[in-house]
Amino acid sequence: MAGNTFGNSFTITTFGESHGKAIGVIIDGCPPNVEIETEFIQEELDKRKPGQSKITTQRKESDTCQILSGVFEGKTTGTPIAILIPNEDQRSKDYSHIQDKYRPSHADYTYQEKYGIRDYRGGGRSSARETAARVAAGAIAKLFLKQHGIEIFAHVSGVGNIDLPEVNYENIPLLYEQREKNIVRCVDEKSADTLISLINTTRKNGDTIGGRIATVIKNVPVGLGEPVFDKLHADLGKAMLSINAVQGFEYGSGFEGTRKKGSENNDIFEKNNEGKITTKTNYSGGIQGGISNGMDIFFKTAFKPVATIMRDQESVDKYGNKTKVTGRGRHDPCVVPRAVIIVEAMAALVLTDHYLRYLSYKK
Amino acid sequence: MAGNTFGNSFTITTFGESHGKAIGVIIDGCPPNVEIETEFIQEELDKRKPGQSKITTQRKESDTCQILSGVFEGKTTGTPIAILIPNEDQRSKDYSHIQDKYRPSHADYTYQEKYGIRDYRGGGRSSARETAARVAAGAIAKLFLKQHGIEIFAHVSGVGNIDLPEVNYENIPLLYEQREKNIVRCVDEKSADTLISLINTTRKNGDTIGGRIATVIKNVPVGLGEPVFDKLHADLGKAMLSINAVQGFEYGSGFEGTRKKGSENNDIFEKNNEGKITTKTNYSGGIQGGISNGMDIFFKTAFKPVATIMRDQESVDKYGNKTKVTGRGRHDPCVVPRAVIIVEAMAALVLTDHYLRYLSYKK
Amino acid sequence: MAGNTFGNSFTITTFGESHGKAIGVIIDGCPPNVEIETEFIQEELDKRKPGQSKITTQRKESDTCQILSGVFEGKTTGTPIAILIPNEDQRSKDYSHIQDKYRPSHADYTYQEKYGIRDYRGGGRSSARETAARVAAGAIAKLFLKQHGIEIFAHVSGVGNIDLPEVNYENIPLLYEQREKNIVRCVDEKSADTLISLINTTRKNGDTIGGRIATVIKNVPVGLGEPVFDKLHADLGKAMLSINAVQGFEYGSGFEGTRKKGSENNDIFEKNNEGKITTKTNYSGGIQGGISNGMDIFFKTAFKPVATIMRDQESVDKYGNKTKVTGRGRHDPCVVPRAVIIVEAMAALVLTDHYLRYLSYKK
Amino acid sequence: MAGNTFGNSFTITTFGESHGKAIGVIIDGCPPNVEIETEFIQEELDKRKPGQSKITTQRKESDTCQILSGVFEGKTTGTPIAILIPNEDQRSKDYSHIQDKYRPSHADYTYQEKYGIRDYRGGGRSSARETAARVAAGAIAKLFLKQHGIEIFAHVSGVGNIDLPEVNYENIPLLYEQREKNIVRCVDEKSADTLISLINTTRKNGDTIGGRIATVIKNVPVGLGEPVFDKLHADLGKAMLSINAVQGFEYGSGFEGTRKKGSENNDIFEKNNEGKITTKTNYSGGIQGGISNGMDIFFKTAFKPVATIMRDQESVDKYGNKTKVTGRGRHDPCVVPRAVIIVEAMAALVLTDHYLRYLSYKK
Repeated sequence: MAGNTFGNSFTITTFGESHGKAIGVIIDGCPPNVEIETEFIQEELDKRKPGQSKITTQRKESDTCQILSGVFEGKTTGTPIAILIPNEDQRSKDYSHIQDKYRPSHADYTYQEKYGIRDYRGGGRSSARETAARVAAGAIAKLFLKQHGIEIFAHVSGVGNIDLPEVNYENIPLLYEQREKNIVRCVDEKSADTLISLINTTRKNGDTIGGRIATVIKNVPVGLGEPVFDKLHADLGKAMLSINAVQGFEYGSGFEGTRKKGSENNDIFEKNNEGKITTKTNYSGGIQGGISNGMDIFFKTAFKPVATIMRDQESVDKYGNKTKVTGRGRHDPCVVPRAVIIVEAMAALVLTDHYLRYLSYKK
Repeated sequence: MAGNTFGNSFTITTFGESHGKAIGVIIDGCPPNVEIETEFIQEELDKRKPGQSKITTQRKESDTCQILSGVFEGKTTGTPIAILIPNEDQRSKDYSHIQDKYRPSHADYTYQEKYGIRDYRGGGRSSARETAARVAAGAIAKLFLKQHGIEIFAHVSGVGNIDLPEVNYENIPLLYEQREKNIVRCVDEKSADTLISLINTTRKNGDTIGGRIATVIKNVPVGLGEPVFDKLHADLGKAMLSINAVQGFEYGSGFEGTRKKGSENNDIFEKNNEGKITTKTNYSGGIQGGISNGMDIFFKTAFKPVATIMRDQESVDKYGNKTKVTGRGRHDPCVVPRAVIIVEAMAALVLTDHYLRYLSYKK
Repeated sequence: MAGNTFGNSFTITTFGESHGKAIGVIIDGCPPNVEIETEFIQEELDKRKPGQSKITTQRKESDTCQILSGVFEGKTTGTPIAILIPNEDQRSKDYSHIQDKYRPSHADYTYQEKYGIRDYRGGGRSSARETAARVAAGAIAKLFLKQHGIEIFAHVSGVGNIDLPEVNYENIPLLYEQREKNIVRCVDEKSADTLISLINTTRKNGDTIGGRIATVIKNVPVGLGEPVFDKLHADLGKAMLSINAVQGFEYGSGFEGTRKKGSENNDIFEKNNEGKITTKTNYSGGIQGGISNGMDIFFKTAFKPVATIMRDQESVDKYGNKTKVTGRGRHDPCVVPRAVIIVEAMAALVLTDHYLRYLSYKK
Repeated sequence: MAGNTFGNSFTITTFGESHGKAIGVIIDGCPPNVEIETEFIQEELDKRKPGQSKITTQRKESDTCQILSGVFEGKTTGTPIAILIPNEDQRSKDYSHIQDKYRPSHADYTYQEKYGIRDYRGGGRSSARETAARVAAGAIAKLFLKQHGIEIFAHVSGVGNIDLPEVNYENIPLLYEQREKNIVRCVDEKSADTLISLINTTRKNGDTIGGRIATVIKNVPVGLGEPVFDKLHADLGKAMLSINAVQGFEYGSGFEGTRKKGSENNDIFEKNNEGKITTKTNYSGGIQGGISNGMDIFFKTAFKPVATIMRDQESVDKYGNKTKVTGRGRHDPCVVPRAVIIVEAMAALVLTDHYLRYLSYKK
């Protein structure tokens, strides 16, 4: 009810503030006998962790995770899996100057008004630090999905005004191993440099910039997703929109598709060589009537520019007085290079959840 | 779990197939003593009902609703409100020719694979006819919100390649009474004709076309929305994406905002003349950190072109044989003029749900 | 949240007041391809319906049910099943004399205080009439369970001070066909007369009397039930306690077992002739650690005497004034003969729900 | 869905195995600005902790809890509260001898069959050690309830064949401070000795014994509890039945009341001197129609004898072979002296949850 739990059959509940003792997650509903590779969870966390490159925040967190329960002799037992990530580098004093101030486009004001109290240090619960817990849980979900052949591929498809039109969704899985070779996490090596230099210039100007992430999910069986309200793309959309800084989601032909005719946007069914029913085109993005149709699922997620900029901004404090907010603390000039892994994690959680729901219909 | 219930505190559960006996909804959690104007519910249904103009489907349904429970002497009692809408004009024979065929970009194939059975008549449960139940429930939600001063305004902001850039979000409530004066439901009278003629031409070509709906919500108190997963915009996004044919959602500065700098996209706090804290701009779309900040909430919803076109299309049947699907039945050339009211209904459901959740924090 | 929905994977949502237009239920999550025998649903309703014998209320309701959705060509489709039961014999005028009065041990006072409004006719929503909707849903659940070999047997095991100690739980299924041969619904033909004459005498005295129902569930596979909070017996307990007039629940050796030693109450495991692991005794009532162990599940449910008696009782009205409540209307002198079928229905709902939850763990 | 979360508005999710690294809980939905006295949480845990007296298990756990999140400067912030209790004294080797054996009346067999894997050490997740997490969460709930004047009083009302008939429910709050003066946690000092010596004798015989706990809740406002399924007593019943070893629950006049006439069991309304509506008797146990009526709530919970006895018992191993289980490890001869605090915690969780649900109806 208070919104810190996600999922129906495979649920995660996260906790923790940016500058508290620890953040973490309980995963409930993970099927037994999933082999848990702790190294894999840590690798995923490392891709999200701060301080990993010159275009991310310089806060230093090892984000070392500990599994406290639910795994026995290397396998899940079907009981809740608790994962703890202690906070290490909380320079809380960096925040005392904004204790009573409302930072523009942050959640300071709304938290204060909603709760009448807030942990102002680093944004407290509203900080994107919470997403590390999602990544840890998402890693478990990926291990489950791997058992069923399902794979998720996300990359940065655009920053600011730069798009990568030549990388259509089908290429993302094919080029996926290029992604970790550049710090912006784009599968197109050549474009990566352009994106990185745009972010760098922005950072040097004390500013931040928005971006877009494209995601492809392969090998999803036909039948995942529940009509009417829990359509697969509706749950994916909610998952993405729940990530800090996301302000848009589209799947298949998306917003662009609304400019088309039915005759241009329809996907014609055919039988492929293996006798499987497929569609000639995939404007439906792998989902029809809210249910996966066996084609690749793909969608885009829109991230606004980070609200914390290294410039002075006018604002008010909690007493309503005019004040100035000076840019301090350690922040990302652009969130998408780290957000890629959060997007994949949330997609993995949704797919796992719907996979389990789908099982309950089987004989 | 099977996805036919929406909401946490104010929940709706819908039922019914396009060509079954009836469709309907149970609303649970509606607070007592909300005055129910049955005429208002009917008016809302009339705005969604088929056959209302030359640019909508010609199926004739009066969509007359009956309240079966939960209302006593004109007021809600706090017990479940059941609303029944009998189906009248089910020309089910229109569908016998597609009994075994998979219509392109419809849910025929995915339903058949998921369930191993389906009511093929008019799309069965996957038909947008289900949304009449949402509109009835949304009308109750609007009556609740009215008690608290909250109002919702949606209109058609674009069809195909035509946008109405001159109508920014702030004008929608101001021009709202223009909306019902044209059959496309656009607040800009002059543009309405252009949109209508585009839809008409498309229809005459046996084709369909997509469109976009813009929505504004006014007078939302500060504090609605639950971090972390149930952010107000995440729930609005899921609500919209659960509507048939929707393939995109954005709020505030949306996808366009991802092209901007932080210094361009941040909303500066100030104190207005009444001593209330507001923001100079509203790129945040009235929501910060997932919680309403008291400014207007606004968002856009993208609808793909209707999949049923009046042309022959290739396809396969359920045995995997090649076949042809001929366009028959009665369908909308463009869904947005009727969808406007569905969008408002879903927004009302989300707002009411979060309003009740918000109350449980109060002393 | 407002408590009119039951279950997680197989959910039912009921609606309706005693003297409104209709009562009914939506079942969501019923797997597809369950064969629906409408006659069976009606037979179950007939066992619960009023006016069936001299020891039940004389209100006449045919309780004829209509399936509005979710069933196509005799089989479930996986979409919501709505069942409607119109109210026919609502002598609402019988209730005008208690419009402002609080009947002793009824819900009049608590509803009025909670909601500030109530449909006083026949108890409105608090009437046991609502349980007809549960019985209809329970019938669907029984049809699902039958596919998996699971059967439920309940009977009246005691009324007032009379117990039937000689009928231990193992005999209930064996003697089950005796149950419908007597109007008190007890599998022990000889004792039935004694119970009936006790109820009859009570009725003639204008009084009512409590009773107990024993239930056995056979052929439950090992593994149903979720630790920690959703233990199978915890969900059965909640299901029973949610039935009107229930004030106690025990399973296995129950309250009596708390008087014993561990050495007397433990169930020793052994391997039976078919190589299956069973227990020598079954004090655990078929559930260990909240999970079914393959033995018969059995439990008891305690029903208080009906609150409406045919005598004058002192009370207060809603203004706090002293008043007198005269016994009028048509009521049961003892609820257990009709409640037997409600108990079975609720047990069927719990078992079906847990069966589906259990499936989501399977590979 | 997997059953490790409890509550709707105030939810707790627990994790941890008996011999894993830690157990713990996340509380979601706790209102902001509740003052948190860490000492109080620890005191509550101390009352449940093992090794506290000669009639409890000798396992030594300090059960020192750490609050990881959700509390800032001594007050709740409205964000999730995570509490961690590290395991200290896990003599896991005590359990290697039962690694493949099914202990009679334990959950070894059902867990193994359900999940195909289990952490056998100390019963793993099925151990009552998990209830420490509930007690920690319950302490937070008690602090919330204290703000609203609601108090919970539980004590041991019977062990084996010994009942304390002279302590009726109204005396429990009056005598409450006597409870902590004896190790069996009974408010009747004189009877305490008898109960203690019965437990002691049982323990010396290598056996265990069952017992009963009576609970009273005072100052509950009128209106808590949701019809139809989430009746206040149904949720209390489920809460109690979810505690390890509980096999029965009754409230108000309970099983005994089913032997009575309506004229004997009805509670007559009257207006007391303060103008408040009350009832002359309280056979309804403070709940009518599932909703609190302002009178004292009271109920009884039945605990079976602990399954682990210090004697040899026959059994089978997981391969189906005959085997012998020797009583080892450190266990309670009778669970009720420690369970009293668990009962109070679960009652506090239910009351808090319903209090918040009740608030969402208020204007």
